[in-house]
Amino acid sequence: MTETSIRSTVEAFYQASADRNVEGIAAMLDDDVDWLVQGPVDVFSFFGQRRGKAAVLDGYREIARRLEVTGYVLEALLVDGDRAAALIRLTSIVRATGKVMSVRTSQFSRFRDGKIVEMRAVLDSFDMVEQTIGRPLDLPGADHGLVSAA
Amino acid sequence: MTETSIRSTVEAFYQASADRNVEGIAAMLDDDVDWLVQGPVDVFSFFGQRRGKAAVLDGYREIARRLEVTGYVLEALLVDGDRAAALIRLTSIVRATGKVMSVRTSQFSRFRDGKIVEMRAVLDSFDMVEQTIGRPLDLPGADHGLVSAA
Repeated sequence: MTETSIRSTVEAFYQASADRNVEGIAAMLDDDVDWLVQGPVDVFSFFGQRRGKAAVLDGYREIARRLEVTGYVLEALLVDGDRAAALIRLTSIVRATGKVMSVRTSQFSRFRDGKIVEMRAVLDSFDMVEQTIGRPLDLPGADHGLVSAA
Repeated sequence: MTETSIRSTVEAFYQASADRNVEGIAAMLDDDVDWLVQGPVDVFSFFGQRRGKAAVLDGYREIARRLEVTGYVLEALLVDGDRAAALIRLTSIVRATGKVMSVRTSQFSRFRDGKIVEMRAVLDSFDMVEQTIGRPLDLPGADHGLVSAA
């Protein structure tokens, strides 16, 4: 597969993602896809490791139950060989609280035969949790040795 | 500048980053670089927005004061046009506590004339904070409406 054909596949995947088109996303997932979103699983159950298309689609449906996505801005999209990397600004309303949440997330994917076989997502999880619970997390103060330690 | 020459510049930048070679990094920063690491500034002062080479280098020195980096694994590195994207597994010892911290981070950069003019870094900040303070963050329980809300 040439890089050109991967680019069009990648662009189709991100169009489907922006549209929250789960069927379109499903069509581009390998049956045995290896999927990892770094973040606290005990806060959002769609974080963590998922294996296989069905488990990943469950994750997308979980997101749709929790969040009403109102904005999806692809700030950068790179394609290189069989890999893609996307930087996304996602805005949504947390259905449980009605609060607006805006978070920056990155996705690194690997494609084979037009399907995603691996995904690694990293996002600003601390900010996402604070925005979701609607208050700052309880942290040690400024004298806790993290900021001010010599 | 051709993509080939950007790739060698990008690879040199990540070699300098892996080596914690601040002079090598400095040589590849535009004087007016726009730099943003998403994360809680009140926990790590090297998070947040920095403008210009001097401010960014201050951030690198701040990291070196706080963390003894013991591992730097480039899990993915993409180059596309004037942009690069890197997925990094960073392992370090938090000097203030002696604790080992391992965090996945992503960096999206844009180059001009062989220098970085823009950087956007996203990392699993929640995990990083928890590992640094050495205990779980105080969160609402499983019935808080985030995981279990209908």
